[in-house]
Amino acid sequence: MTMRMEHDLLGDKEISNDVYYGVQTARAKENFNITGITLSQFPTFIVSLAKVKKACALANHKLGLLAENKKNAICEACDEIIGGELHEQFIVDMIQGGAGTSINMNANEVIANKALEILGHQKGEYKIVHPNNDVNKSQSTNDAYPTAFRIALYEKIFELIDSMKILRKSFAKKADEFKDVIKMGRTQLQDAVPMTLGQEFHTYVTMIDEDIQRLLEAQQLVREMNLGATAIGTGINSHPDYAHEVELKLQEVTGRPFVTAKDLVEATQDTGAYVQISGVLKRVATKISKICNDLRLLSSGPRTGINEINLPAMQPGSSIMPGKVNPVIPEVVNQVAFQVIGTDVTITLASEGGQLQLNVFEPVIAFNLFNSINMMKNAFETLASKCVDGITANEDRCKELVLHSIGLVTALNPYIGYENSTSVAKEALDTHRSVYDIVLERELLSKEELDDIIKPENMIKPRVR
Amino acid sequence: MTMRMEHDLLGDKEISNDVYYGVQTARAKENFNITGITLSQFPTFIVSLAKVKKACALANHKLGLLAENKKNAICEACDEIIGGELHEQFIVDMIQGGAGTSINMNANEVIANKALEILGHQKGEYKIVHPNNDVNKSQSTNDAYPTAFRIALYEKIFELIDSMKILRKSFAKKADEFKDVIKMGRTQLQDAVPMTLGQEFHTYVTMIDEDIQRLLEAQQLVREMNLGATAIGTGINSHPDYAHEVELKLQEVTGRPFVTAKDLVEATQDTGAYVQISGVLKRVATKISKICNDLRLLSSGPRTGINEINLPAMQPGSSIMPGKVNPVIPEVVNQVAFQVIGTDVTITLASEGGQLQLNVFEPVIAFNLFNSINMMKNAFETLASKCVDGITANEDRCKELVLHSIGLVTALNPYIGYENSTSVAKEALDTHRSVYDIVLERELLSKEELDDIIKPENMIKPRVR
Amino acid sequence: MTMRMEHDLLGDKEISNDVYYGVQTARAKENFNITGITLSQFPTFIVSLAKVKKACALANHKLGLLAENKKNAICEACDEIIGGELHEQFIVDMIQGGAGTSINMNANEVIANKALEILGHQKGEYKIVHPNNDVNKSQSTNDAYPTAFRIALYEKIFELIDSMKILRKSFAKKADEFKDVIKMGRTQLQDAVPMTLGQEFHTYVTMIDEDIQRLLEAQQLVREMNLGATAIGTGINSHPDYAHEVELKLQEVTGRPFVTAKDLVEATQDTGAYVQISGVLKRVATKISKICNDLRLLSSGPRTGINEINLPAMQPGSSIMPGKVNPVIPEVVNQVAFQVIGTDVTITLASEGGQLQLNVFEPVIAFNLFNSINMMKNAFETLASKCVDGITANEDRCKELVLHSIGLVTALNPYIGYENSTSVAKEALDTHRSVYDIVLERELLSKEELDDIIKPENMIKPRVR
Amino acid sequence: MTMRMEHDLLGDKEISNDVYYGVQTARAKENFNITGITLSQFPTFIVSLAKVKKACALANHKLGLLAENKKNAICEACDEIIGGELHEQFIVDMIQGGAGTSINMNANEVIANKALEILGHQKGEYKIVHPNNDVNKSQSTNDAYPTAFRIALYEKIFELIDSMKILRKSFAKKADEFKDVIKMGRTQLQDAVPMTLGQEFHTYVTMIDEDIQRLLEAQQLVREMNLGATAIGTGINSHPDYAHEVELKLQEVTGRPFVTAKDLVEATQDTGAYVQISGVLKRVATKISKICNDLRLLSSGPRTGINEINLPAMQPGSSIMPGKVNPVIPEVVNQVAFQVIGTDVTITLASEGGQLQLNVFEPVIAFNLFNSINMMKNAFETLASKCVDGITANEDRCKELVLHSIGLVTALNPYIGYENSTSVAKEALDTHRSVYDIVLERELLSKEELDDIIKPENMIKPRVR
Repeated sequence: MTMRMEHDLLGDKEISNDVYYGVQTARAKENFNITGITLSQFPTFIVSLAKVKKACALANHKLGLLAENKKNAICEACDEIIGGELHEQFIVDMIQGGAGTSINMNANEVIANKALEILGHQKGEYKIVHPNNDVNKSQSTNDAYPTAFRIALYEKIFELIDSMKILRKSFAKKADEFKDVIKMGRTQLQDAVPMTLGQEFHTYVTMIDEDIQRLLEAQQLVREMNLGATAIGTGINSHPDYAHEVELKLQEVTGRPFVTAKDLVEATQDTGAYVQISGVLKRVATKISKICNDLRLLSSGPRTGINEINLPAMQPGSSIMPGKVNPVIPEVVNQVAFQVIGTDVTITLASEGGQLQLNVFEPVIAFNLFNSINMMKNAFETLASKCVDGITANEDRCKELVLHSIGLVTALNPYIGYENSTSVAKEALDTHRSVYDIVLERELLSKEELDDIIKPENMIKPRVR
Repeated sequence: MTMRMEHDLLGDKEISNDVYYGVQTARAKENFNITGITLSQFPTFIVSLAKVKKACALANHKLGLLAENKKNAICEACDEIIGGELHEQFIVDMIQGGAGTSINMNANEVIANKALEILGHQKGEYKIVHPNNDVNKSQSTNDAYPTAFRIALYEKIFELIDSMKILRKSFAKKADEFKDVIKMGRTQLQDAVPMTLGQEFHTYVTMIDEDIQRLLEAQQLVREMNLGATAIGTGINSHPDYAHEVELKLQEVTGRPFVTAKDLVEATQDTGAYVQISGVLKRVATKISKICNDLRLLSSGPRTGINEINLPAMQPGSSIMPGKVNPVIPEVVNQVAFQVIGTDVTITLASEGGQLQLNVFEPVIAFNLFNSINMMKNAFETLASKCVDGITANEDRCKELVLHSIGLVTALNPYIGYENSTSVAKEALDTHRSVYDIVLERELLSKEELDDIIKPENMIKPRVR
Repeated sequence: MTMRMEHDLLGDKEISNDVYYGVQTARAKENFNITGITLSQFPTFIVSLAKVKKACALANHKLGLLAENKKNAICEACDEIIGGELHEQFIVDMIQGGAGTSINMNANEVIANKALEILGHQKGEYKIVHPNNDVNKSQSTNDAYPTAFRIALYEKIFELIDSMKILRKSFAKKADEFKDVIKMGRTQLQDAVPMTLGQEFHTYVTMIDEDIQRLLEAQQLVREMNLGATAIGTGINSHPDYAHEVELKLQEVTGRPFVTAKDLVEATQDTGAYVQISGVLKRVATKISKICNDLRLLSSGPRTGINEINLPAMQPGSSIMPGKVNPVIPEVVNQVAFQVIGTDVTITLASEGGQLQLNVFEPVIAFNLFNSINMMKNAFETLASKCVDGITANEDRCKELVLHSIGLVTALNPYIGYENSTSVAKEALDTHRSVYDIVLERELLSKEELDDIIKPENMIKPRVR
Repeated sequence: MTMRMEHDLLGDKEISNDVYYGVQTARAKENFNITGITLSQFPTFIVSLAKVKKACALANHKLGLLAENKKNAICEACDEIIGGELHEQFIVDMIQGGAGTSINMNANEVIANKALEILGHQKGEYKIVHPNNDVNKSQSTNDAYPTAFRIALYEKIFELIDSMKILRKSFAKKADEFKDVIKMGRTQLQDAVPMTLGQEFHTYVTMIDEDIQRLLEAQQLVREMNLGATAIGTGINSHPDYAHEVELKLQEVTGRPFVTAKDLVEATQDTGAYVQISGVLKRVATKISKICNDLRLLSSGPRTGINEINLPAMQPGSSIMPGKVNPVIPEVVNQVAFQVIGTDVTITLASEGGQLQLNVFEPVIAFNLFNSINMMKNAFETLASKCVDGITANEDRCKELVLHSIGLVTALNPYIGYENSTSVAKEALDTHRSVYDIVLERELLSKEELDDIIKPENMIKPRVR
């Protein structure tokens, strides 16, 4: 292994000639040994960094600040990274100090050295292409890093929505399949009034549809980026036309409608968009957790629970209880939801801790937002294919529970009044008899009237008395 | 004190004839002795309950389900409550079991008894006007209660935004006042590059403007309500035209664009809108907390801190240290923010805990959302009038810090290169000398060039080299 | 209303002669209009403040720093407050800036003016007895306030434990009452193996017993206080023997084993004990919430749920569904638990936000710890008397569920092996037949063997094969 | 690659003969594709599983339930795993459904197949050694899994404490080194009274010492384990002497004082110990975050901040600002603290979600507790070696700030009274003059008296007037 000598503010350091990153990345690697999870595991983020660097090189060149050959080499290096190459060179720990400087320098160094190779030079010949003076030209970590973060987040939200659409479709299919299965609705875990299992499953479709809308709205917030801000938003060391040029180039490179924030000083220190997105992810998590709680309740049993539906058996449920099958897929989704909900607090703390012109805690925000999205995406696809698609209804059980329910009495309310109904319900409860028999015995309604009122199709929607 | 006998599912109970509430409210009062904070302390919520009951009475009458005289009496009773009367009759604890049934019955009973009086009857003569059969007609707690909650929330968000506009104006005034005060920007609490104090304060204006936008968006979510759902969303016991009629009447009574949810089964169990609003309140809290942290940092000192600004003295700062003045107003706002952030977790837990056709934990959600909005409103108005309006700048101190700063060297970067600049910075740091002197000594720039580059007005915006 | 003129760092201010508080309290009242909840609603805290002031006066007098007549008057004033007088004079908002200075000055002013009256002087004649120079002598807010907070917390934890003992006793009584009720245990909401309802209820006894132990351990942490620290822990302006004297006097006045922290600089800034106590309260909340979730599950139905137990009916359950009775008491306890869990995050944020020699956010910590304890105390007593004490078992239902359960097969495992058992379970599930019949049909065991194995008393504990 | 056919409740499945895990592990791998982080990355947990399985085999053999040769083979297989072998065979995702069944079965299958090899058989010949009937004998996931979790947690807490001792030592060394550096203390970021930098750093020593004590106390809670509980705590399918035997064997195998819970039904469903430990980790995180905030404040500058101390430069601080050095190590530690604080909420949610006889969410609890401990351990060691050890004091700066401070006036309080002191402070503030000059000018004290009072050594501790 041959070595090259690199140099920075702290002095000299030997770097293996095998690697494309340089001295600053190497120092970061030594400094931050925290999670063992490196940037290389987040390819969308790496690609976004390369897109930012490419857009900046194009803008710098357009303004006459970067020579043609350098521009070409930098762009070619970026394109390789965008195409999936060199990702293993992004070695810094995702939780790091320095507000993302190490991630930005990792990108600057890898791109500079790749560009040098493209130009026929040796790695480390930074007089030809310099990580700071050329690749990072007109930029600061404080604008390049959050812009790349936002680009990646924008794409990841689309990925998440795709997984939600799959799940939505699975629920919609079941809602249709179960549209004629009459069952009891429950409020406060107590017998309420009849509904269809199709209505129950359609609820989940509606929930996911609404959540997708909320995500699309939140996604709009990250369209606003701060390239041109440089160090603190004043644009020091940048050309007056640069911010506008780089906005155009970024739109071109990404094919996405990113726009420059109007108040770049604010945009450089603000993390409100991340808190908002995390809040929406928390909302999504809260609702999918509720859905999974319902699936576990409805499939409880088989003999001593509600047992209205069957989840597909995915694995033996117990190392000691033979034949036991557990709702393992909803259970894992619940846990993903708890993880997302908890790390929303982390993101909030990180956001609150920003001081003056910068929030130094963006790395932990990025780490958690990407993790949350990745886990939820996996969870939703798992839930769709390994659980919802295979759900079956115990139609007879559902019907039987309706017929024996005291909740039937609610339907009689408009005919016999709240107080008569209450009295019937009380007797049914005390004597373990059916509402049906008691109403007839008390001659509150004729058999014909009663049969008509409690016809299932009459109880699951509004009706003229 | 004369008494009347009332009756419910659990049996008879004596109620004082002085009070308008009835047996179910009285039971709830006995059952829920938790916070000591009652519905009567949330007038907007009480008014919203009365608006719902009025709209329902109007719709029921329109459909021929409620007699003219009853409708008139109920509406008149509601109007009194809307006008601020009878609020002391709303006695149930804000944290309660039963998914809001006690709050709904409290409203039903007070309105029924007031209507009875209006019609010349005694309180308790429920055969004439019945809390359930008449006031609650075509309704369930599960649609009436959340609809009232949403109406109240809609109004409270406007109140909150009003307080934010006051604060925004205070910051905008200061941003203008301080627009020529040159100071050092700081990233990671380390000297960065120059900016103006006006730019710094304008940041807060932008933040609040964006937060107002997010609140307005979130507010849209509570426009969707579920009247017509009755018990679980199937509309059992309601007239087929009722949902549409009551939507129109509610718009009329409230003057606000409330609309009926398309999927009433979903709308009855879903609490996603509350989680979203809480998430946005958390965002607002996070940012105002950051702003207050900044104000405390910038005013730190007076002799051993940053001391760039002075907060107005509001009270002696210490029982032992004479002359000490503390940033007590930002400090109290920070604490309000922490409260809002913490109770977002409460709201999330309550939302996640919903089961099947209903979320029984809405009361604790309502309690916290209203408390958060009230506290933030108070905090924002306090911050504006008792702190921001009286802030003054220590202009000389700000300027002096710029001139002695090493951060000046960043501005030289495009002229002398990153590595020369680094070397100058290092020497300045090691020798406690100024960047200015070292650059001249090393003859990196002429005095004219250097003076031009570091002119404050040249360092706070982009510039052609 | 006659007025007196008072004076502080900010200038003159008229104060009504009717009130015992003075200028600094009045300013705090104007400055902090946040929650509307004042110190006067926390009597234990007020009493603790008076105990601190009394102990300090005694120590100051012992060291010759406070004249006999002043000491006597101050102690008499404190005793009145300890006896429940003058609490309405404590008017500052519980969420306040200034690290408790306003609460400390409220106490200093009320005590000074009461002492003046006792000595035959007018309120406001501070040359005779001065709120700072006399009542606050040798103290700072930074030691007097947290010490009072700790004394109050110490007492409140005893109150909380008392309520837990009541609840524990209620569960223990039921555990005994249900000790012979055989029922199915459930894991993952799926049928598992038999147990007794007594074992199930005894679990809750054990949980509460363990939680009481954890609270007693955590309570030890607040025994350590920092009187003698004065402003930052260095003891500036205090006599070298003061810290020791005041420790003895505090033990005497409170009758509790409070001790002086060894590192007073640390003790003055540290809030670790509050975070720990909040963490333990969160633990207690988490477990009581789980218990209430169980009670709601076990009583679900009556016809379409588990229905193994009946909770006592406390109020009608629905405004639309006659006869419906809901588990309103467990529901309200769940919500209290969510509140405690959420505000633990608030306390954590407040603790994390402490800077350098002081944590300025103690007021919001105190507010939430006291609220959490008060709500939990109310909730536990409510749960005991209004729910647990009235629980009855549906013994027949419990037994029937055992007999029909597939979970019986687990007991056969050691006799017929895991794979045979699995096969039997599968057939039972698929054919809706009983495990009992299939085992006999397959001649895996004789009827005598089988009957012996599945005798309830043999399945609920270990057994020699 | 040769394959073997394995079989479970769901049917047949081909398994590669290269691997030691079996059909149930393979299904779990397919089912749970969530985090990509597998059990194999948590060696302490794997070793603990093997210790449990070994202890159980020994107890089963002692009671005549497991043949000698099987016992020997199982123990040998376990010893290999304890020695670090076969860890790559533990392939299940750390976030999984099924309450740990997949982790338990992964261990059962790997150990069974290794034991088979040891006995000269082929993998998969489960008639000889069976994962369930032999390796899992007298166990359930519900006792084996949490016991292994607790053993691992017990060991990890020791590791964490070791890292805290390293950090404590670093701070103690600095406290000693800086014991004569006089500086201003600050409360509420405002100048307070003098102290030494040594006192300030000693605070951190005390904090860490106390945190270590709290961890040791919390660690005691996981000593209680539930082997012998089997499925739900009733001990079904276990020998009456088994629980006691396995307790002894576990103590022998682990060398740690693990004891059997008295109430095994409670112990099987309870997760209180994890919530408590997480709460203590949160406390530790909160305090280390506060310490890092302090380090960042005290080193702020170099020219426009407090600048009392210098943190060692670890890497260039900026891609645009030459010479900038940032407090990157404290920054990364803050972020670890935020992660720990956030995931405490996750753990709380998971604990609250337990139902009836089991908490199915233990996997996400284990995942987060292990991650939190690992990250904190890394963070503490990094903070010690890469930051604290290299901190230097700017002694002159510290002294100068004391001399110019208005806080000096506090020391005069006992001599000239609170009101004179206030007036002097006010004049100093308004005129930018020194307290020293004004006191002399007003002839409040003689020069000799004044010089004596404000001698640094007299201001940093109590003193007889």
